[in-house]
Amino acid sequence: MEDYRISLTANRKSKDGSIMGKVLDFKEEMIKHENSSYNVYKKNPFITACDRQVRYIDRHESKEQNAIMFGSNSYLGLCNSEYVINKSIECIKELGVGSGGVPLLTGTTIVQNELERSISSLTGFEDSILFTSGYCANLGMVSGLLGPENLIVHDKLNHASLIDGTILSGAKMLRFKHNDLTHLEKILKENTSKYPGGILVVTDGVFSMDGDIADIPAILNIVRRYKCLLAIDEAHATGVIGENGGGTLSYFNIGYSKDIILTGCLSKALGVVGGYISASQEIIDYLRVYARSNMFSTSLPPGDCASVLASLELIRSTDIVKRLFFNSNYLREKLKDNGFEILNSKTAIIPVIIGDDLKASLISKDALDLGVVVNPIFTPAVPANLSRLRISVMATHTKSDLDMLVSILINLFNKYDIQRL
Amino acid sequence: MEDYRISLTANRKSKDGSIMGKVLDFKEEMIKHENSSYNVYKKNPFITACDRQVRYIDRHESKEQNAIMFGSNSYLGLCNSEYVINKSIECIKELGVGSGGVPLLTGTTIVQNELERSISSLTGFEDSILFTSGYCANLGMVSGLLGPENLIVHDKLNHASLIDGTILSGAKMLRFKHNDLTHLEKILKENTSKYPGGILVVTDGVFSMDGDIADIPAILNIVRRYKCLLAIDEAHATGVIGENGGGTLSYFNIGYSKDIILTGCLSKALGVVGGYISASQEIIDYLRVYARSNMFSTSLPPGDCASVLASLELIRSTDIVKRLFFNSNYLREKLKDNGFEILNSKTAIIPVIIGDDLKASLISKDALDLGVVVNPIFTPAVPANLSRLRISVMATHTKSDLDMLVSILINLFNKYDIQRL
Repeated sequence: MEDYRISLTANRKSKDGSIMGKVLDFKEEMIKHENSSYNVYKKNPFITACDRQVRYIDRHESKEQNAIMFGSNSYLGLCNSEYVINKSIECIKELGVGSGGVPLLTGTTIVQNELERSISSLTGFEDSILFTSGYCANLGMVSGLLGPENLIVHDKLNHASLIDGTILSGAKMLRFKHNDLTHLEKILKENTSKYPGGILVVTDGVFSMDGDIADIPAILNIVRRYKCLLAIDEAHATGVIGENGGGTLSYFNIGYSKDIILTGCLSKALGVVGGYISASQEIIDYLRVYARSNMFSTSLPPGDCASVLASLELIRSTDIVKRLFFNSNYLREKLKDNGFEILNSKTAIIPVIIGDDLKASLISKDALDLGVVVNPIFTPAVPANLSRLRISVMATHTKSDLDMLVSILINLFNKYDIQRL
Repeated sequence: MEDYRISLTANRKSKDGSIMGKVLDFKEEMIKHENSSYNVYKKNPFITACDRQVRYIDRHESKEQNAIMFGSNSYLGLCNSEYVINKSIECIKELGVGSGGVPLLTGTTIVQNELERSISSLTGFEDSILFTSGYCANLGMVSGLLGPENLIVHDKLNHASLIDGTILSGAKMLRFKHNDLTHLEKILKENTSKYPGGILVVTDGVFSMDGDIADIPAILNIVRRYKCLLAIDEAHATGVIGENGGGTLSYFNIGYSKDIILTGCLSKALGVVGGYISASQEIIDYLRVYARSNMFSTSLPPGDCASVLASLELIRSTDIVKRLFFNSNYLREKLKDNGFEILNSKTAIIPVIIGDDLKASLISKDALDLGVVVNPIFTPAVPANLSRLRISVMATHTKSDLDMLVSILINLFNKYDIQRL
């Protein structure tokens, strides 16, 4: 089983071309996965809250283990904040565990309204709309605004949900090389006259696998020259970069504008669940009715909204965003000093490049045995020669957590004979 | 403004063909909506939990009002159950407000696993997978299992999320007339040989706008004759029909089978948020990796999972499902006795046909002033001559709530000169 390689896409089609064929092909794959004691298709469940230290059940050994968490999106450590928990409980006691309806029928309470205002105040945009996930926010934004008469131009590393929204919209799609603005401009130059219905340019603010930041001032410059709209996915930027965690625009000191649409997550730095779109009043009013992932989904429970409101309060009133920035910088410098390749990371996401799918999964497995959770990322999420560990820093990590991680990585890179610079 | 008619689709395309054109067209529409004091594109927010009695803020009059709720999907009244609330709070104290990751990275705790087992025990299927919404469960089921080489055959009244999943999958789509099994068989007969990759037949178990039940025994008979797979959307059936609210299969005394896939909601009768798929072990294992709406969404928060677990406990240990059945029957008979057209409703959803979009919206508005929340349903959600009020019965409604509703409807039908039988 030494050479068994995990693949997240090999069974997208079946050998015999049938629906059940691929399901049964994957059944064999699942057996190999379990025999190799992996933890990718099926998980070791955690028995404690998501925090810097966690406890989980090792499925293969049937025993409980502790680990330091470097694989969560709860960058600010808010999932388990006592203040947030108490605010959530207060709200659940008053408003119950569910909203009971879709937003446009009976699912809107004062708490959803209050959270929309609070997000708008964070982003500086006119109004915001909530979704049950960031996936649904992106789906609703793209498919609500675009149709087959439009062109959408993506950065090549944009999140999967933006691609799914594009397919749903029927819009024509083109992609520019990651953060390559000459390529973006070339595409717009060649296509503007072909799409009188309009063009939407979309980019992640912070890229989820590389941790780098889109060059929004330059992109905006081009987008405006060609009279397009710009959408920025703030999933990994909200609460992480910019003044008070305000996100990518705040990071670049760019204010609200009618030609920009923001989407984001309430489940990452904000620590709960859900997604949002922030935009001009008229775009938000429009999407409340025309974003089908909003129209046809029950609203977020009041308690979840109250949790996010409490997270936003803590972001404003404490130094957690600064602590995250400090921890990320510390780890990044230490990794660089030890010769690890971390690409162009500038945020709480630090890719540690391994360059081989099999070694990435083996190192992640060994690291867990040594007491740290790090996620391996394979093809096709990233190119094969750039397979990696995706390290997520938290504001609550201690210096000794970060030091321990680096020392474990040094040992494992030696064990698997991976060159450092 | 008397003749102003609400439309949920008129602005899908703009007059000038541009993206911002439709947004600005809708801005004018929104002004008319607000001038007519409607509550459709924008809502009067509730200030109390979703329950049989609710309190809301009238946006147009800026004052607080009470009403009896006949527009919620919380059929069993579980959104505000003290038992469920306490279980949710216990879990949040222990496991925090969010899961911190997607299911296949760090978002799986023992509570998600426990809820999956509890849903499987309700449906009687081998395994289940959670989603952040029923919309995402349907999207993931269809687009995870099907590709352009497949045919999907829908009942014409299937939910929007199943259609969006179909578009995302690239499968070829055909639709049969509502519950018309001769038409279904005709389609399968003509197409089976053309799709060696396989065909999926999909139907709602309980139809969301009519409240009738799909004839699953007959459909299954046909589906098996043509060796297709069958998917049933249990959104409005789970917790409502069948032994202990087990859903449509339980209602028909049909057991688990490898050729059936169930999808459903945790946000309707179960009172919280989220969706699920129940199926054979191998289909669930497959979809954990290949349903992108699962793979790319943060897991449901532990507290929301604990709430649903508590709801499922109450369904097993109390008589709420029977009380819902009793209330629904009582109201249905009383509406029929008074000559209202309610189609073929057999569940907690009772359509009261009005047959005119404008009158449906005016009656809904007047009903709210008289103290009951009822949702108007227009074209294109239903055909123009079948526009209606969609009454949702709750297990917690009292006899006098139900009597009051009927008497208000009689008065309003008289006011607007609508014939009863």
